[in-house]
Amino acid sequence: MNEFELIARLTKSLPTNQNVVIGAGDDCAVLDFGLPDKWLLFKTDATVEGVHFTKDTPPEKIGRKALARALSDIAAMAGTPTAALVTIALPQKFDVQFVEAIYTGMRALAQKLGVAIVGGETTANPERILISIALLGFVPRGKAVLRSGAKTGDAIFVTAELGGSLAGKHLEFEPRLAEARWLAENFSIHAMIDLSDGLAGDLRHILKASHVGAELLKDAIPISRAAKLRAKESPSAKPPFVAALTEGEDFELLFTVAGVDAVKLLDAWKKQFPKLRLSCIGKITADEGITIRDQTGAQPLAAHGYVHFAS
Amino acid sequence: MNEFELIARLTKSLPTNQNVVIGAGDDCAVLDFGLPDKWLLFKTDATVEGVHFTKDTPPEKIGRKALARALSDIAAMAGTPTAALVTIALPQKFDVQFVEAIYTGMRALAQKLGVAIVGGETTANPERILISIALLGFVPRGKAVLRSGAKTGDAIFVTAELGGSLAGKHLEFEPRLAEARWLAENFSIHAMIDLSDGLAGDLRHILKASHVGAELLKDAIPISRAAKLRAKESPSAKPPFVAALTEGEDFELLFTVAGVDAVKLLDAWKKQFPKLRLSCIGKITADEGITIRDQTGAQPLAAHGYVHFAS
Repeated sequence: MNEFELIARLTKSLPTNQNVVIGAGDDCAVLDFGLPDKWLLFKTDATVEGVHFTKDTPPEKIGRKALARALSDIAAMAGTPTAALVTIALPQKFDVQFVEAIYTGMRALAQKLGVAIVGGETTANPERILISIALLGFVPRGKAVLRSGAKTGDAIFVTAELGGSLAGKHLEFEPRLAEARWLAENFSIHAMIDLSDGLAGDLRHILKASHVGAELLKDAIPISRAAKLRAKESPSAKPPFVAALTEGEDFELLFTVAGVDAVKLLDAWKKQFPKLRLSCIGKITADEGITIRDQTGAQPLAAHGYVHFAS
Repeated sequence: MNEFELIARLTKSLPTNQNVVIGAGDDCAVLDFGLPDKWLLFKTDATVEGVHFTKDTPPEKIGRKALARALSDIAAMAGTPTAALVTIALPQKFDVQFVEAIYTGMRALAQKLGVAIVGGETTANPERILISIALLGFVPRGKAVLRSGAKTGDAIFVTAELGGSLAGKHLEFEPRLAEARWLAENFSIHAMIDLSDGLAGDLRHILKASHVGAELLKDAIPISRAAKLRAKESPSAKPPFVAALTEGEDFELLFTVAGVDAVKLLDAWKKQFPKLRLSCIGKITADEGITIRDQTGAQPLAAHGYVHFAS
């Protein structure tokens, strides 16, 4: 049983109440507390030593990453983050300066984005450091961008380049908060997700929630320099295209808009964010599943995205 | 360095913003999102295998406890819980039914109290299960009961009996939500906290936040049957009075009211909650520190509460 199958079993028939707009199953939960113009976004995300960072990772970057991961989920709903709680589970013999430096990295990013850190809990985890961030944000009432809105004929877009994040980007990525808000304010974004488990895996989340399929254009998928470099240097590395499709922790935005909006959106994006590449990588189809089209034709994609628990 | 010294260092000069009423340092963070009649309460709490439960603990009780601990913090502010996110970190080879049973215990308590579970994250923690609950609640605007309001001359109250929680209560305690709300609605509660680290330790949190001291009456401190029984059965066990002062995980309410309200409150409590003992255990003093008074006189208390990281 992999992570997603487990989550599907655990989140069946969870208790709900009148405050819940969207419960389990999207990037954030969406809550309605009766504010006339806003919904609340609610998210937690954990970062674990040996899984998301190593003993050699600079502590400031660990703290920054822990917070940035959760911020990326607020971005995926086109929201604005506001307040975070920080849980750090630590071995009994911890290095105080190391833990303070984790906080330093977190604090710097929070400050930059206007996010308050409103509490800290420490607890024991004897073998490794585990950080869990709980994050609240806002989105204009009725305007949260969900995974479930993709429609047949939509154009599929992705920001920046994909693959090879472990070479460094996974510690330094920018949550695409401003970009996501601009998209939602200026276009009708049908569905959006942030890429944490790899393009193939996360696109499948959109497709499943929207009951549609996708056709990707192989040559349109933007591949990172890091993924290309690694493939050149090591014959055993994944081909760069496979890396771009299946590697986790890109933390870029993947979204869909009506096909008729695609060119207008690309033009406006280039003016608004001239330094950040945006690629149209394919289209939403009525037939479920993902197919990849190249010069030789279309092939169904079997490869899964990154899954935390291999079965 | 113990847990509280570490937290004090980490939570110095955290970033804040206009939504924050109370940041780090109380039972919950308090946030103002512009609702005319409400503030939001925001809390996380972690439950760790080998620390808060063992390999032999029934999984339903693990789940129940994980949620109940966070609910107890909402109670300590006189709030009403509304929505929870559940993070479960798991070893690679986990027993699906065990994890589902954790959820069953959590779900039952959530359902009973009208709390929505709005999402679940699973992640890897190779050596042990760790559960972190993020919880949102409400409190009437301006009515959150803080740790910082205790005044010289206040009477100090505690619910139920203390000590010996590890014999079973730590898995079955009732978060005192209804009781705390009734208290705040009917009396001017100056300060409140839930007992997670032991009476002595948690009382010190109130005293420190309020810049006051306390005198406890030794004979007035309610001691649990479990603590008395253990002392009888094992000569090496803590004396029951010491257990009641220093053992963690009682999850009872500790609060203070003006001395003139004390008798009225006790009388009203007996009518409202006839099955739940309430004890007046002493008074708030201008002199800092805790003293214990018995027939022989008053002694300063050196014993600390339960501290997760012994230095």
